[in-house]
Amino acid sequence: MTWKLAQSTELDNPNLLLSESLLTLGNGYLGVRGNFEEGYDGQFKSIRGTYINAFHDETEIKYGERLHGFPLTQQKMLNVIDSQTVEVYIGDERFSLFEGEVLSFERNLHMDRGFAERIIRWRSPQGRETRLHFRRLVSFTVKELFAIDIRVEPLNHSEQVVFFSTVNGDVSNYVDVNDPRLASGHAKRLNVTDIRYEHGLSLVRDTTMITNLEVACATATAVKAGSYIHAQHTKHYAVEETYECAGGEPVTFTKFNVYTDTLRHGNGLVESGIAIQDLQRDTKFDELLAAQRDYLDHFWSISDVEIDGDTELQEGIRFSLYQLLQSVGKDPYSNISAKGLSGEGYEGHYFWDTEIYMLPAFLMTQPDIAKNLLLHRYAILDNARMRARVMGHDKGALFPWRTITGPESSAYFPAGTAQYHISADIAYSYIQYYLVTQDEEFLRKEMAEVLFETARFWIEVGHMKDGKFHIDSVTGPDEYTCIVNNNYYTNVMAKHNLEWAGKVYRLLEEEHSGRLAELVKKIGLDSKEPGEWEEAATHMFLPYDEILKINAQDDSFLQKKRWDLENTPKEKFPLLLHYHPLTLYRYQVLKQADTVLAHFLLEDEESLETIRNSFDYYEDLTTHDSSLSYCVYGIMASRLGYRDKAYRYFKETARLDLDNIHGNTKDGLHMASMGGTWLSIVSGFGGLRVKDSGLSLNPWLPENWDGLGFRVRYQDRLIKVRVESERVIYTLIEGEDLPITHHGRDFVLVSGRETIIQWNGQEDEALIR
Amino acid sequence: MTWKLAQSTELDNPNLLLSESLLTLGNGYLGVRGNFEEGYDGQFKSIRGTYINAFHDETEIKYGERLHGFPLTQQKMLNVIDSQTVEVYIGDERFSLFEGEVLSFERNLHMDRGFAERIIRWRSPQGRETRLHFRRLVSFTVKELFAIDIRVEPLNHSEQVVFFSTVNGDVSNYVDVNDPRLASGHAKRLNVTDIRYEHGLSLVRDTTMITNLEVACATATAVKAGSYIHAQHTKHYAVEETYECAGGEPVTFTKFNVYTDTLRHGNGLVESGIAIQDLQRDTKFDELLAAQRDYLDHFWSISDVEIDGDTELQEGIRFSLYQLLQSVGKDPYSNISAKGLSGEGYEGHYFWDTEIYMLPAFLMTQPDIAKNLLLHRYAILDNARMRARVMGHDKGALFPWRTITGPESSAYFPAGTAQYHISADIAYSYIQYYLVTQDEEFLRKEMAEVLFETARFWIEVGHMKDGKFHIDSVTGPDEYTCIVNNNYYTNVMAKHNLEWAGKVYRLLEEEHSGRLAELVKKIGLDSKEPGEWEEAATHMFLPYDEILKINAQDDSFLQKKRWDLENTPKEKFPLLLHYHPLTLYRYQVLKQADTVLAHFLLEDEESLETIRNSFDYYEDLTTHDSSLSYCVYGIMASRLGYRDKAYRYFKETARLDLDNIHGNTKDGLHMASMGGTWLSIVSGFGGLRVKDSGLSLNPWLPENWDGLGFRVRYQDRLIKVRVESERVIYTLIEGEDLPITHHGRDFVLVSGRETIIQWNGQEDEALIR
Repeated sequence: MTWKLAQSTELDNPNLLLSESLLTLGNGYLGVRGNFEEGYDGQFKSIRGTYINAFHDETEIKYGERLHGFPLTQQKMLNVIDSQTVEVYIGDERFSLFEGEVLSFERNLHMDRGFAERIIRWRSPQGRETRLHFRRLVSFTVKELFAIDIRVEPLNHSEQVVFFSTVNGDVSNYVDVNDPRLASGHAKRLNVTDIRYEHGLSLVRDTTMITNLEVACATATAVKAGSYIHAQHTKHYAVEETYECAGGEPVTFTKFNVYTDTLRHGNGLVESGIAIQDLQRDTKFDELLAAQRDYLDHFWSISDVEIDGDTELQEGIRFSLYQLLQSVGKDPYSNISAKGLSGEGYEGHYFWDTEIYMLPAFLMTQPDIAKNLLLHRYAILDNARMRARVMGHDKGALFPWRTITGPESSAYFPAGTAQYHISADIAYSYIQYYLVTQDEEFLRKEMAEVLFETARFWIEVGHMKDGKFHIDSVTGPDEYTCIVNNNYYTNVMAKHNLEWAGKVYRLLEEEHSGRLAELVKKIGLDSKEPGEWEEAATHMFLPYDEILKINAQDDSFLQKKRWDLENTPKEKFPLLLHYHPLTLYRYQVLKQADTVLAHFLLEDEESLETIRNSFDYYEDLTTHDSSLSYCVYGIMASRLGYRDKAYRYFKETARLDLDNIHGNTKDGLHMASMGGTWLSIVSGFGGLRVKDSGLSLNPWLPENWDGLGFRVRYQDRLIKVRVESERVIYTLIEGEDLPITHHGRDFVLVSGRETIIQWNGQEDEALIR
Repeated sequence: MTWKLAQSTELDNPNLLLSESLLTLGNGYLGVRGNFEEGYDGQFKSIRGTYINAFHDETEIKYGERLHGFPLTQQKMLNVIDSQTVEVYIGDERFSLFEGEVLSFERNLHMDRGFAERIIRWRSPQGRETRLHFRRLVSFTVKELFAIDIRVEPLNHSEQVVFFSTVNGDVSNYVDVNDPRLASGHAKRLNVTDIRYEHGLSLVRDTTMITNLEVACATATAVKAGSYIHAQHTKHYAVEETYECAGGEPVTFTKFNVYTDTLRHGNGLVESGIAIQDLQRDTKFDELLAAQRDYLDHFWSISDVEIDGDTELQEGIRFSLYQLLQSVGKDPYSNISAKGLSGEGYEGHYFWDTEIYMLPAFLMTQPDIAKNLLLHRYAILDNARMRARVMGHDKGALFPWRTITGPESSAYFPAGTAQYHISADIAYSYIQYYLVTQDEEFLRKEMAEVLFETARFWIEVGHMKDGKFHIDSVTGPDEYTCIVNNNYYTNVMAKHNLEWAGKVYRLLEEEHSGRLAELVKKIGLDSKEPGEWEEAATHMFLPYDEILKINAQDDSFLQKKRWDLENTPKEKFPLLLHYHPLTLYRYQVLKQADTVLAHFLLEDEESLETIRNSFDYYEDLTTHDSSLSYCVYGIMASRLGYRDKAYRYFKETARLDLDNIHGNTKDGLHMASMGGTWLSIVSGFGGLRVKDSGLSLNPWLPENWDGLGFRVRYQDRLIKVRVESERVIYTLIEGEDLPITHHGRDFVLVSGRETIIQWNGQEDEALIR
């Protein structure tokens, strides 16, 4: 059950906009929002969107006062050629859910089968009753393909059925009419540069205004009908096709749209599109569906998480995993943008969301996908080096806070560029990848270089003072406190970065001196530097308050006034929309988990007492105005045994978009929260941690659940974990025997066997069978 | 001597642009840059400017990311109707310094006589030799009047002389073609709305695009010539007049331009202009000159500063005082903008420069002018209250960091809005005014309200922590360190603000309870508040470092890395143009005096040892990238007996614009540095301080000077101070006997008498005669 997301069929505008995001289809390359093929009522707003991951233009960033190093331009993922549009006429009446009478209407996303559908019984204004079944998919196996299938069945008439299909190159990005950016060219970034009907294909090619990237759509249409007349018409910006089908019988229209772009297909993108169409020429829509199912069967066989006894949350986690799969870039040109391919929020940029919130779900289930995300960061390492130079540093690499292909695209540096922790976050994800996969070749080839360059950057930024290594003037994850000294999160993550850079250097020195020599030469590494990294790591200053016995968020955080959250009126949230940043910066108040997140990622740096005190302290000051917050508090609540809290935070996380909790899901899905949902389960309820010392778990089951199941890949093993109220069953499905730690005790999982650990009073007891 | 500024006559573009600023004429209402009436060579850049203080439009401020409370618009002083233009033809040849041969050329600003001139002997391409004498003035007595007088004397010919004069309403602000703001409507902000030739006057009226302010120019022209033909022509945007004068004799052309605007003259601004012209109808240019001289004789009789033995510095101080007089607004609509009326830099905005750098020179010599500056701040108190609300505070007033008529116009808040000290700076200037004038009515009427509202704001912003009052997340004067906690300057100035608010409250309570009741009602003051002010003042946290024995600039400044100024290449200055602000914020490095300025303004808060240690410490870290820095370091060098340094800093200050030290004088004069020049002498070499305890001086004479003289007004006295190498002569010219402190010893100045204090070995000895 709950493989099907049955979506709201209310025809009011807020629900339709919400459904557009929720019913997005995608495959990491291509994403299509859940718009109606025939459109809405004329008055309704729609964000009609088709996106290609990383396909972007550049727009100017304006500043009232522009200072040195402020980026001049911002990348922006574009809404590309529209191939969704199909109008249907029954006799002389145009089908519209906003006219006549909707006798029944169902709308589903099939997460196990990889398609979305609308099933409609409609009575036209003139009384003609018709059943319409719209199905659509974005193929997981042919990444360029978006297919639509429309079956029209007359119920009480034999009117002619006309399909009027368009492929339109005259598209714009969505800009609210009240948005001042409308005027500054943020909407229209694509020009149609070629338009043809050839080889039975509608061919449309667009070019971006600044980056000169090209996108093409090659569309093949067909009908299954008794008899029909086909016509096509090429306009300046669009190719239109009509099929007039004789009435009386059910008729079916299919539209196969193949998207190609210069980033992946080079200058021959139109030819590539045609070639892909040729390969698909005899494929039926049902065959595509079968391929989707195969792909997803494999995906879910590893990635599925089962929550027994809570349908809503079961839906939440499956929806999250499905959308993660749909959003994640699977080539080194792309990553996962903050809204996936479901909307234009955050301009399609990639943030730390990838490394800290989304990557773990892939890393532990589909490590090849995870690796691609790391390779994307490696591909932009040169940009990160250049950015460090612009900021005034002679060495090292500073990754951009937000970007698509590498250049820093953040326009407000205190909550953007200043988040230097992104470099340590990326380093952390490399280290986690290595710990999970033990991919030695990756370590030598990409990981060493990334760790060395980020470590060097910390040396540039920080300095020794009174025997401790300090990092000043940065912003941590909490954007309600910007530009501070010794942000705990940043410092501890930098420490980890520096330690591992040293460790990898020593390892290469011993075992791969040839590769090391190559790398030393490439990046001009001085032999003294690794010693500096180790020293900085050893002496890293980690702020701790002796009285509160917590880690201070930064040097000055605990000196500030406490924000009175209890007496802040509801309508003043999120605070950043109602208070000047300076005012927010002046208070102890958090947008999102900061120190608490550090305690999740690097729990061995502090005692459990400090971690608990810190959680208790910061929780009272956190607004969760960021969608990145609930899951972290939930995971740490699990860690600390705050079970009710853990469950409540999980609920907020798991259905953030499904219940439109932040009210802005229409602009796109909160992908980090989707990743956070998986983390909440596996690292929260499952208590899973990956460390140099191995794999550990601390599972427990929320009271009102009957059971929880998930699988993880780890060092060539596949482990199934089943948590019940009084026992946990580990099954080592693939791979050799593996020692793990369960609630602090060591066990060895035996290949092909179940290990059942029973709670009986004081102690756990293991049974292997 | 040195009443005459003989300006460069080099005809290269940089020198001409520089001279445009240096030869600006103004009277605080109207300012006209020193452009050539006939223009330059076609290729040359010119900032052709006529400005009315406070006459402005609004332009949009663009942000890549706009957060709550960021101002949407920025005020901008406008370049108004151009009446400078007069072309002169000798026969068929157009006079131009860029053609033919310049036989001699002199260019002067007469600071004692209030006019500028060009005296030229010119040989035309066809060999005609002519003497031309251009004179111009902006009247100190009729503020609306800008007059030009051109005498043309044939030397070897008897060609007809033609004057072609224009009043042009089609004007724009200056925007560099490379400036991205060009496109965003920053240049063209005025439309011509009325244009006529009537009553023998050219009448041009312009209206701003957004603010709907209007400006009008009424121009009367005349020639003195044997015979002539006059014609006029009204175009869409301009009125043109020609005078064809018979040759052979010297001829003189005069042009009287009267500027009026809706801020001062209401909707009948054109009629006002005509009326003012009517009053001037029979006035000759020489009569205007005589009135200028009278006005300036009076001005200099009080304000002049004599430096014997150094012509260059004598010129520097006179030029400074003259430009201050020309720039300062003399009605409550206006203040002194950062560039005076000499250019468009900083958009004609008013900053703290007024209170801290420029006001003292007026306060101690022309207190009525000083009072108007304070009244301007009082007039925008409502804006300051509103701004505090926008920032999230229920009470109090936050003055805008930069503004014309009150709204915050700063686009980069970390070095703008965040400089909350502006409110304390304004309070400080009110207190200084009161100490110097003992204007009780002002205290009751305006001062009490300003002090109360600013004091309340500090209570809103700060908080008690461990028994001390802290002020977090503000920026001090040094813009290389932004958004910090407990900036010493801000805290000590806020302390002074709070103390005096309490003091004034108690005073009103005792002596003017009626007025107090009125005020309490008006601003909703709770009777507990004054106690809070006093408590916050008493417990104000003033950061002090026990090891260095200095005041820390803020809580974290001394923890940061020191910038290596010595090894920073020259071309990397000013640093803000070469480093990202985050990088600058990360270091101990100063743009300008910060703690050292606080030690000047409130010297009794710290021991001399702390003040000395602080000076020594911060001086090594200060780039003086701001023009507000040298003078403060110079004054404090005097205070500490660092005589060589004091003299060197003074030289940098006194000739900052004359020698174009910052390279940007073309954009306008550095008015604060002009005020700082006066301060360097009177508070630096003279050591003058005004405190609640009275007037004190600590004069000394730089080695290579023969003498130094200045006058100050203080509590209805006029005191002349003459400093020589071995003695000081105080003359109490006006007013009753006055006790003063001289080098720490008390003396009484006797009415109408000289007090000569001689240095003889160890002790000073006084002789009264």
